[in-house]
Amino acid sequence: MRILADAQALEAAGRDVIHLEVGEPDFPTPQPIVDAGIAALADHRTYYTGACGLPQLRAAIAGFYASRFGVRVDPRRIIVTPGASGALQLILALLVGRDDEVLLADPGYPCNRHLVRLFEGKAVNVPVGADTRYQLLAAHLGAHWSDRTVAALVASPANPTGTVLEAAELAALAGACRERGGALIVDEIYQGLVYDRPHETALSSADDVFIVNSFSKFFQMTGWRLGWLVAPDWAVDDLEKLAQNLFLAPPTPAQHAALAAFEPATLAILEARRQELDARRNYLSARLTQLGFVQAATTEGAFYLWVDAARFTDDAAAFAAQLLADEAVAVTPGLDFGDAPTMLRFAYSQPIARLEQACDRLAHFCKQDLQNGVFRP
Amino acid sequence: MRILADAQALEAAGRDVIHLEVGEPDFPTPQPIVDAGIAALADHRTYYTGACGLPQLRAAIAGFYASRFGVRVDPRRIIVTPGASGALQLILALLVGRDDEVLLADPGYPCNRHLVRLFEGKAVNVPVGADTRYQLLAAHLGAHWSDRTVAALVASPANPTGTVLEAAELAALAGACRERGGALIVDEIYQGLVYDRPHETALSSADDVFIVNSFSKFFQMTGWRLGWLVAPDWAVDDLEKLAQNLFLAPPTPAQHAALAAFEPATLAILEARRQELDARRNYLSARLTQLGFVQAATTEGAFYLWVDAARFTDDAAAFAAQLLADEAVAVTPGLDFGDAPTMLRFAYSQPIARLEQACDRLAHFCKQDLQNGVFRP
Repeated sequence: MRILADAQALEAAGRDVIHLEVGEPDFPTPQPIVDAGIAALADHRTYYTGACGLPQLRAAIAGFYASRFGVRVDPRRIIVTPGASGALQLILALLVGRDDEVLLADPGYPCNRHLVRLFEGKAVNVPVGADTRYQLLAAHLGAHWSDRTVAALVASPANPTGTVLEAAELAALAGACRERGGALIVDEIYQGLVYDRPHETALSSADDVFIVNSFSKFFQMTGWRLGWLVAPDWAVDDLEKLAQNLFLAPPTPAQHAALAAFEPATLAILEARRQELDARRNYLSARLTQLGFVQAATTEGAFYLWVDAARFTDDAAAFAAQLLADEAVAVTPGLDFGDAPTMLRFAYSQPIARLEQACDRLAHFCKQDLQNGVFRP
Repeated sequence: MRILADAQALEAAGRDVIHLEVGEPDFPTPQPIVDAGIAALADHRTYYTGACGLPQLRAAIAGFYASRFGVRVDPRRIIVTPGASGALQLILALLVGRDDEVLLADPGYPCNRHLVRLFEGKAVNVPVGADTRYQLLAAHLGAHWSDRTVAALVASPANPTGTVLEAAELAALAGACRERGGALIVDEIYQGLVYDRPHETALSSADDVFIVNSFSKFFQMTGWRLGWLVAPDWAVDDLEKLAQNLFLAPPTPAQHAALAAFEPATLAILEARRQELDARRNYLSARLTQLGFVQAATTEGAFYLWVDAARFTDDAAAFAAQLLADEAVAVTPGLDFGDAPTMLRFAYSQPIARLEQACDRLAHFCKQDLQNGVFRP
């Protein structure tokens, strides 16, 4: 977050900053979704909905699971939330008592750990590396699962690495959690943003997992703050009560807008954008490799490249700060996601022309850097 | 909440239910706010904002404190949140460690207690009665403040009672909390919905309190899910980090819409509606008194009447359930708010013609009831 604040300060001072640090697609919300939102406002559909969201939206999400993934989900098991943050809050409030432990991959999305702590649970970071594509797998559980462990939280596609869990890995994880009396939580907020592979959900591998999802990334509705969760049937009534206490209801205009998210016209726009992201991924990946950054795992999803800058520095945070100051290119240091001091996350949430400019600046910076030896004293 | 579900079920079965149980004004969001929301959507202003909200909205809220209440607040101390729920979550996450105690009035809004418990704090219910207009006052603190108490939470105007704290009472409360090393949290979500008295804020009485506020009630933006808090300066940086972890940012379209909330045209609409609520209050209050319900305290704010049904029953929850079943009038039993078995809350969030109809049905029910002796066996 310091990089983002510094980047904004530079920008305010008139510099042309290239933002490869933010977890937000540059695309505007697709027009059919915007139009549905406008129609809802014009029609004064702005009163509270039920705590679990509009019945027709829950049904539409269930319809999407059926049509896209071939998975049947009772709409009752789908709870619409204020963003994925709201979904994870509900699940943690339900599952995590004080001092209960939740296993998470390190590196991983830092807010998840913080949320576990806010509910007085203990976030147990499980170091993962290139050998498992930075994913927490069933094989890790034995060494980290304790009497106090209640759940493991994985993400597919993952942030910051962009790697994906295979169906067999998810089934093994769900089974391993189940036989230990715990739950598997799967963060699927980058679902749909996958390249060279089919669309997938963990619900195809196991029916008793907790799913966190979002309209922010694939559907490009970031600022609308809308997400959902899928829970086992036994959990739904308690989750509804928690939703009433934690946030009453998700935002109404966003829910009406999201009804248009699953229409063919919207899905066609989203598919074109997915292809555009794929092209960016290929471009940026090739340029960074050429420059000497090492991709430790193949990025198959989300819109991030997770690269090792060890050739240039043993302090990627200092490297990122200097890169921003010298060349006005903002990237996120690996330390923001865990114990990864030489890693950097590049978001390809900018058009290719802009990525090209960023890489040219980066090339200049690395050349200077190697000459001056700033980062490897 | 059971009454609401039962009322909806009756309605689905074709009954003409009169809803006096819901905490939502029947007015649509004022048109200038809706228009600003539509303009924001048309203009694709749907990306994430900063965690604390749009700078121009924080400035507009500060401007409102200056113009309406004559209070200067640095916009930096104002954090825009997803509803008042989000504001209270942030404040509790900041102030309440495990087993720390928070004092709350009983009766009071039940979600507040539940939120304290979700953050592993202990909600200490302080019984309050008609002698203090159902308000927790400084005089109560001595008997309930312990080594583990970190804050007292009061509401003005209050739910379910509609009573207001006087400036001197707020100053005394703030001082008493301060000298014990704790904080005063003031829920002002019904601010502006006051009758026979001026608009007020606790910030006029003390600068170091935590304020919870909302665009839902006075500004009639319920489903938009937007609120704010005001915090002492020392707390702002930590609250910003908590906001990033708990919900990233408040909804963007709602923030742009809310910029129109403080315009003269909007405020004129809101003043007309406040007068309409006042007329409803006077009507309903007179009719209920005539029927034999006792108002234990003068309702000066919000849109609730808190009445004692002891003349008819010693089980107001059963009374409310039977009233709904027999006459399709929904009201909320006092037990939903605390230890108040003979009390009922009537929301005057319906037009007078509808209130008249409700009172006629109630009169019929009470007559029947007294004859049959159902509630006083």
